[in-house]
Amino acid sequence: MREPIRIGIAGYGNLGRGVEKAVAQCPDLELTAVFTRRPPDQIQSRAQVVPVEKSKDYRDKIDVMILCGSSSNDLPEQGPFFAAQFNTVDSFDLHARIPEYFEEIDAAARDGGNLSLISTGWDPGLFSLARVLFSSILPTGKTYTFWGEGVSQGHSVAVRRLPGVKQAVQYTVPVPETVEKIRQGETPVLTPREEHFRICYVVPEPGADRDAIEKAIKTMPGYFADYDTTVHFITEEEFAANHTGMPHGGFVITTGTTGGGYRQQAEFRLKLENNPEFTGSVLAACARAVYRLHREGKTGACTVLDIPIGYLSPESPAELRKKML
Amino acid sequence: MREPIRIGIAGYGNLGRGVEKAVAQCPDLELTAVFTRRPPDQIQSRAQVVPVEKSKDYRDKIDVMILCGSSSNDLPEQGPFFAAQFNTVDSFDLHARIPEYFEEIDAAARDGGNLSLISTGWDPGLFSLARVLFSSILPTGKTYTFWGEGVSQGHSVAVRRLPGVKQAVQYTVPVPETVEKIRQGETPVLTPREEHFRICYVVPEPGADRDAIEKAIKTMPGYFADYDTTVHFITEEEFAANHTGMPHGGFVITTGTTGGGYRQQAEFRLKLENNPEFTGSVLAACARAVYRLHREGKTGACTVLDIPIGYLSPESPAELRKKML
Repeated sequence: MREPIRIGIAGYGNLGRGVEKAVAQCPDLELTAVFTRRPPDQIQSRAQVVPVEKSKDYRDKIDVMILCGSSSNDLPEQGPFFAAQFNTVDSFDLHARIPEYFEEIDAAARDGGNLSLISTGWDPGLFSLARVLFSSILPTGKTYTFWGEGVSQGHSVAVRRLPGVKQAVQYTVPVPETVEKIRQGETPVLTPREEHFRICYVVPEPGADRDAIEKAIKTMPGYFADYDTTVHFITEEEFAANHTGMPHGGFVITTGTTGGGYRQQAEFRLKLENNPEFTGSVLAACARAVYRLHREGKTGACTVLDIPIGYLSPESPAELRKKML
Repeated sequence: MREPIRIGIAGYGNLGRGVEKAVAQCPDLELTAVFTRRPPDQIQSRAQVVPVEKSKDYRDKIDVMILCGSSSNDLPEQGPFFAAQFNTVDSFDLHARIPEYFEEIDAAARDGGNLSLISTGWDPGLFSLARVLFSSILPTGKTYTFWGEGVSQGHSVAVRRLPGVKQAVQYTVPVPETVEKIRQGETPVLTPREEHFRICYVVPEPGADRDAIEKAIKTMPGYFADYDTTVHFITEEEFAANHTGMPHGGFVITTGTTGGGYRQQAEFRLKLENNPEFTGSVLAACARAVYRLHREGKTGACTVLDIPIGYLSPESPAELRKKML
């Protein structure tokens, strides 16, 4: 058997732990170390835990560094920092800033002779693959992306910041009637309200004004104002029992008409009991591809759109042709 | 605008006509000529129609030749013949013989300095991509492929060959109870009978023995013996009215468990009103990728597993990052 690919994890929140679990399921990958800005003794990993400042000592001990920091706070700085030293994989997901982030990572990775795969996971990532694949095959088609039913971290945080809110979670849910129409082959133009609705479970502070909280949520611009939102007030016990999971999912669907007037439909769907563990599994598979492409001489920044799918698999091209084609 | 990619079509049955319609929907592709072994005046194409023997005169007029012959009768000979002269795309679908076919095409294409993408379409092709993608991300997962509801040409032909059968069509249908179980996250071991059932519509010759036909179908080894099959006898009029379409589809579904014990599910589904037109659209998009990869210096045989998904799109990598990621 070949030597395993040596993986580093930078950042050890939910996603970092998800990557660690994913790597443990892959015999061809091996976790070398976790890099953190926290005091290392606070990290419960089975791997070696190393302060970020010492990462340069690991340049010849790690084949691919998987960056698990947040897109808003960590990656804009950590991405270029690590890309200059290591091959990297990250899940940068601020869609509007991806082109700019790509350029920064591309420059850093080229300088270091490394390869960096940015913005992977399931969206951006697998859903991006589906959008490009479907629209390339059905150029007359209309493509929709729906998210949920699942927890949106951004919306949950927005609710938790409101005065009088002790704890909260927000579920995004596709509107069933709309989904049904689209699966039947219709291609409507949709408002945000017709695509998704939002459900919030809120634990209020004692004595908080519930009507004021509900109103503040439902009218919050950018987050809730354009959607139908339901707010449920619950106890801390109910919250702890039923709302601490991280399920998510969604689907990309394209309906197009080919030359003879026939409707053709393609759909890619995910149903995830745990979002960070699944995202971690995508990042681990992508690390395999980055390792191989770098060995073939590729450097700079890339995305899942630039990677042959076979490179994600531990099996050889000949095995894949025989068993999977 | 760049010069369009010049496409040739070799073989002008249902698939060849599907490719012609697909190319007409893509402004960056241009159909140069259709190559045929039939008398050219029998072909109703809007493009130039050329006898196969004259294909060598078109070596510098065609960028990619799309091979639309049958896998059993035409491609084993035509594949290597064209791969030596042109970049090619084909839909060779005899799964067990793919490794051997790959080697033959690889040798011919390398000799000619060309690139040949074999065995594309939706299965093998898009479904292969889904199988490799899902099993790479969820290595503990179990992957199922279901076909239908749709017309199986092979099974329809097998029924039409029986004595007393004037016309026939066979629909393959996934067993709904099984599909429901799998979508709920179960991962059963299945017999063929638990996966699909088969429905035949048969127009008998006048005076034919219907019981004998039904028995011959239901007991036919390799085709029907391992499945539950329903046989309906219908009139020629009913056949012409309801059973001359070529719908198909199906799905690839994987359920796996990540390290924390969470079930994660991915599904890729197609619902096609016309199978050859959709397959033709896949082949056309693949021709775009072959053209680009050949320009980058790649030669020999390859499959969809070797191609970055972004190469299937008419848009540039920067545009795709901005709009689709």
